[in-house]
Amino acid sequence: MNRRDFSLRLAGAVGALSLGNTRLGASARDGASRQGSAALRVNGDRINQHLAALSEFGKNPYGGVSRVAYSDFDRKGREFVMGLMREASLDVRIDTAGNILGSRPGSSAALKPILFGSHIDSVPDGGNYDGDVGVLSAIEVARTLKERGVTTRHPIEVVIFQNEEGGTIGSRGMAGHLADKDLDLVAKSGKSLRDGINFLGGDTTKLAAAARKKGDYAAYVELHIEQGGTLDAEGLNIGVVEGIVGIGWWDVIVDGFGNHAGTTPMDKRRDALLAAAKYVQMVNRVVTSEPGRQVGTVGRIQASPGAPNVIPGQVLASLEIRDLDQAKIVRLARKVMDEATKIGAENGTTFTFKETYLSTPAMMDHGVQKVIESSAKALGMTTKHLPSGAGHDAQYMAELAPTGMIFCPSQGGISHSPKEFTKPGDVINGANVLLQTILALDAA
Amino acid sequence: MNRRDFSLRLAGAVGALSLGNTRLGASARDGASRQGSAALRVNGDRINQHLAALSEFGKNPYGGVSRVAYSDFDRKGREFVMGLMREASLDVRIDTAGNILGSRPGSSAALKPILFGSHIDSVPDGGNYDGDVGVLSAIEVARTLKERGVTTRHPIEVVIFQNEEGGTIGSRGMAGHLADKDLDLVAKSGKSLRDGINFLGGDTTKLAAAARKKGDYAAYVELHIEQGGTLDAEGLNIGVVEGIVGIGWWDVIVDGFGNHAGTTPMDKRRDALLAAAKYVQMVNRVVTSEPGRQVGTVGRIQASPGAPNVIPGQVLASLEIRDLDQAKIVRLARKVMDEATKIGAENGTTFTFKETYLSTPAMMDHGVQKVIESSAKALGMTTKHLPSGAGHDAQYMAELAPTGMIFCPSQGGISHSPKEFTKPGDVINGANVLLQTILALDAA
Repeated sequence: MNRRDFSLRLAGAVGALSLGNTRLGASARDGASRQGSAALRVNGDRINQHLAALSEFGKNPYGGVSRVAYSDFDRKGREFVMGLMREASLDVRIDTAGNILGSRPGSSAALKPILFGSHIDSVPDGGNYDGDVGVLSAIEVARTLKERGVTTRHPIEVVIFQNEEGGTIGSRGMAGHLADKDLDLVAKSGKSLRDGINFLGGDTTKLAAAARKKGDYAAYVELHIEQGGTLDAEGLNIGVVEGIVGIGWWDVIVDGFGNHAGTTPMDKRRDALLAAAKYVQMVNRVVTSEPGRQVGTVGRIQASPGAPNVIPGQVLASLEIRDLDQAKIVRLARKVMDEATKIGAENGTTFTFKETYLSTPAMMDHGVQKVIESSAKALGMTTKHLPSGAGHDAQYMAELAPTGMIFCPSQGGISHSPKEFTKPGDVINGANVLLQTILALDAA
Repeated sequence: MNRRDFSLRLAGAVGALSLGNTRLGASARDGASRQGSAALRVNGDRINQHLAALSEFGKNPYGGVSRVAYSDFDRKGREFVMGLMREASLDVRIDTAGNILGSRPGSSAALKPILFGSHIDSVPDGGNYDGDVGVLSAIEVARTLKERGVTTRHPIEVVIFQNEEGGTIGSRGMAGHLADKDLDLVAKSGKSLRDGINFLGGDTTKLAAAARKKGDYAAYVELHIEQGGTLDAEGLNIGVVEGIVGIGWWDVIVDGFGNHAGTTPMDKRRDALLAAAKYVQMVNRVVTSEPGRQVGTVGRIQASPGAPNVIPGQVLASLEIRDLDQAKIVRLARKVMDEATKIGAENGTTFTFKETYLSTPAMMDHGVQKVIESSAKALGMTTKHLPSGAGHDAQYMAELAPTGMIFCPSQGGISHSPKEFTKPGDVINGANVLLQTILALDAA
């Protein structure tokens, strides 16, 4: 993807911003000076009230939310946020892929829209911040611009992607990566993607109409909770995302020989679980043997036949490695496989690795990163550049437009849990950085 | 259990036998001298033919048998072997606990019966030797005595215990350890023990009538395949079982903290599976750290939530330790628990052990062991004293009478598998040792 030209232009804009906001003018016309724009702030209480109101849709009795994509709760939650979008005077529509779009014209007809947003669907037993913070802040940004009479040069468009948690389905549709055959996949709601998208108001018979081309948008920006605990632990305000890590997944099968646990002496065993146990430790050792922020996880393990009185003949396990550098993912995986072969040789077991998924890292645009950082600093906030270990809709938007992500802290790094929590002040900080980033990109 | 008096009597008899079979007389009256008895041999071809015939009841298309207790195959198989018992002129009945008993009077009205037999039920996907060899050899012993006109002093009784594989249910009933409340347990067949026992011709309303008292039998002897691979690996003919190991079972719960595998740095994890992996290796190390034949196994493991992209927050695993010395079982388990606490401390996880089962080792009678050994040696066979790592009906019979077990080799030690195999010659050897053991015990 060649986004360099646009990046350079943005980098120029940032240079202007970093000169103490002295370059005024063309960026904010009708009713707001550049100085005025820099002073703009969202209505933070309103965002947090909206977060509380949205949390009612699919609320769990024990806390958190289960607003699974394509469920009734999902559809009702979407109706609620579409209402908020209309209050912000956005022109709301649902594209054929089921994504909600709310647009507002800009002053310059020749310019492409700046897109920003996130998602409101949750995992089962999820929390009230993952996705929601980005969506409600995006709507609040649009509402602030309207209330303060600011017309941007670029059109702006707020997006609520459908079914992010089920595999960034909405953004895949917008990037043109959702084929008709994919639509038979059954989502967590029990509906197929096809039925789910149509249930939300999309039209899967015209899916191609939802696809955008590279260059259709001037930029994409997404505010999201960090999910990791880095910002919280280090007491920082804002994360500037460098990229979304690539992910490699492998199914791992360890074959030994199942036998009677009472009658088979210790030195005559080909215990698949004993080999798998060494494998789990080895993965941890190999992944931490190089400097860097790569992570490696064995999340799944099951021994069969799985009785306490039978030596496991087979173990099914997993391997996941994530990093911003795909070459590193592949190198570490190869090392894991080599070491596993040695472990197997020790007790007559064999390891088989089957690659089930390998995604390319999606780098965030350098220019947009600089705008986010400058915007945060201008607001007096502390920042840190960091990778996103989790996947986001932004990874597909990065194919279409220069893309950036803003992280706000997530307490204890807990996410996908009813315990997920971001302090109201941190939500407001994130929304103000989003607002200033959109304005700065618009001024570029 | 005080079985010493009877053991001493048997030991005396063995002493006599070991003097080169010079003490003839009272043991084998009507039609067979003691010398004649020592020369008696079973019809080995007939046993192996019967093994093949019995294998048809519940035969798997891919080999082996699934003659699960209380199934139609089980009942039909029992009808087949009851026919064989009648051919051997045994007086056949089913006790109220569902066990099949076939008796033949002895010459001395004052003497208690000598009991011998095994079981014909199998595990699902089991083999054709576990249990069957003991049952068909026992019937063949009775038939040989009949055909050769040998009347023993003691009455003899051939027993086919029901549902050995589901927890030695029939022998528990005979030992008086089956309570009415136990009968609600659902067996592998899908039937409750109650329905299953009645289906086989037992009468659970009169279960107490099946219970025998200590002293009701003069001895119990069981021929069984070894299941372990010791005799096969060492090229030996006969195993003289020293005892049936005690078994300790624990459920093991490892609690960590489940979190996003992409966003949680390696040094911030409380990975329950990483701790569990160290535990599995540690169990192996602790169990093999002392000399002896004890075995320790982790047969079950499951990580939750069990997704490749989530750090396991909890792992459920098992611990099993078996040995002939219960003190050793307890000592090793305590060591495992101490070491597990240390492993947990390394990454902030906790281990909880819940004892779910702890059985007492059942020692075989020393006198009967000597008779088995002498009988085998007199037949020119090699022997080895060894523990039974598997449970058997003999462990309950040991509460009622001096008890012994004869092992014949099991190829590769494979059992509970369609691949289970004992060579025809080894089956015949086992049956001849059983025959000679019964005769020697009768002569005591």
